[in-house]
Amino acid sequence: MADAPSGSDSLAIICGGGSLPGAVAEAVVRRGRRPVMFGLKGWADAKVIEQYAHHWIAIGQAGRFFRLAQAENCREVLFIGAVLRPPITQLRLDWQTIRVMPRLVRAFRGGDDTLLAGVAGIAESGGVRVVGLNEVAPEVFVAEGALGRHQPSERDRADIARALNVIAALGPFDVGQAAIVANNNVLAVEAAEGTDQMLSRIADLRRQGRVTSPIGAGVLVKAPKLGQDRRFDLPSIGPRTIENAARAGLAGVAVTAGSTIIAEAAEVAAAADRTKIFVIGVPEHVGP
Amino acid sequence: MADAPSGSDSLAIICGGGSLPGAVAEAVVRRGRRPVMFGLKGWADAKVIEQYAHHWIAIGQAGRFFRLAQAENCREVLFIGAVLRPPITQLRLDWQTIRVMPRLVRAFRGGDDTLLAGVAGIAESGGVRVVGLNEVAPEVFVAEGALGRHQPSERDRADIARALNVIAALGPFDVGQAAIVANNNVLAVEAAEGTDQMLSRIADLRRQGRVTSPIGAGVLVKAPKLGQDRRFDLPSIGPRTIENAARAGLAGVAVTAGSTIIAEAAEVAAAADRTKIFVIGVPEHVGP
Repeated sequence: MADAPSGSDSLAIICGGGSLPGAVAEAVVRRGRRPVMFGLKGWADAKVIEQYAHHWIAIGQAGRFFRLAQAENCREVLFIGAVLRPPITQLRLDWQTIRVMPRLVRAFRGGDDTLLAGVAGIAESGGVRVVGLNEVAPEVFVAEGALGRHQPSERDRADIARALNVIAALGPFDVGQAAIVANNNVLAVEAAEGTDQMLSRIADLRRQGRVTSPIGAGVLVKAPKLGQDRRFDLPSIGPRTIENAARAGLAGVAVTAGSTIIAEAAEVAAAADRTKIFVIGVPEHVGP
Repeated sequence: MADAPSGSDSLAIICGGGSLPGAVAEAVVRRGRRPVMFGLKGWADAKVIEQYAHHWIAIGQAGRFFRLAQAENCREVLFIGAVLRPPITQLRLDWQTIRVMPRLVRAFRGGDDTLLAGVAGIAESGGVRVVGLNEVAPEVFVAEGALGRHQPSERDRADIARALNVIAALGPFDVGQAAIVANNNVLAVEAAEGTDQMLSRIADLRRQGRVTSPIGAGVLVKAPKLGQDRRFDLPSIGPRTIENAARAGLAGVAVTAGSTIIAEAAEVAAAADRTKIFVIGVPEHVGP
């Protein structure tokens, strides 16, 4: 068993919220591997989780996870889906977690990247290897090029480059996977609010007359943080991102190819065509 | 007249919104100089402007401004108060402005700093020198040290340093004079929304359970953008900033000493004591 090639075992998927865990499980099944969903209580969506072999766990139940993963023949684990930083009072701790508590506390002290690196270390201390999505289902990443009919203009391309540079500048601070730039003006930088709330802020500021760039100018750009551990918390888009970007009056959405996850790619392209905005995968590294 | 020492003439003050223009005019009067207020239509507050010699101008009426400034014996001009980027359709252009239009258009293309540098160039082409607040009323800047009874903790000081570094990192992008950091996590970065809306977002995210840092942790930090032209658009705080920071559940507010303008300093200190948060002036340069 210890010598079985990687991939012959089942894959444990620790599932946060949203539809992404389902899209990933589907891709894993298409590749002939069995996914075992570990839904995080309070975040994972039962409708998504329950379509596959599954268990429910609470954050902090490392012992229970290791026991179940072993019983299910999972020697690799993938983390996927939205998990907001939990308030400490909502953690359900078991003995194995308490054993690794000093590490967990250290992990919580630094921003998200540190937290996640801490979680990876803890998982691996239990004998389960943490894998990245690129290892198990690379097809869920956005590819380079436009997804729908529309293409960015020269002006949009300059705004995309500026937004990528803003995100890169914030990398050391473990914040900001997204920014909105219109006609060279940085209108919004994402932090705790998330992409959907950032987009609806732009729609509000436009109504208030505080964003004055014309409708059809400006881009939402999503990119992974510089130096981000690619096994966790990658940027993602779905049809709702496109609809909200259109509502914010933007020209389009650009995401980094090969590192942004797309849920429901066909629906994303259809939403882009319907709202007449572009959606494009761009290379990660753009000069200043 | 051309040889009169600087300061013996009247001072033109081009006034945007808020109470700052009034606070500055008061300081100028205390120093024995006559202020002439040029209220920007649509932004300046009549109650503030009309307490002094004043005229109303629209953005773009450079010719009218130069004519009035000369008639009022003003050879120096100060810009103060909030002016949001105007939609191009709201500009009222006169002939002298149309003459400098190519420069104005270039200025509008690069973010706010470029716009303002362009405006300064245009003002100086009309023979009026643009002065900074530090030259005419340095006492309106926040000094180093606490303004009220409360002091930041060690934890708060680390959050202040991190926020200053976030603002410094965004300097090249002409965005972000403010950020909110709690327990080392960057919760918000200010762009088009302004400080008050950023603070109310944190209050909302807390109600939604998306900001989980405890009440009484976290700081709002305001600092001028790196390389910002100090004659324009400096960060400022007033009693409302303090009340909103308290409502967002923060421990306090830190601003850079010598470069942040304070309107109603006594009221700011009183608001801080009443809401039990700290307000402190800190040095601009803090190591990473």
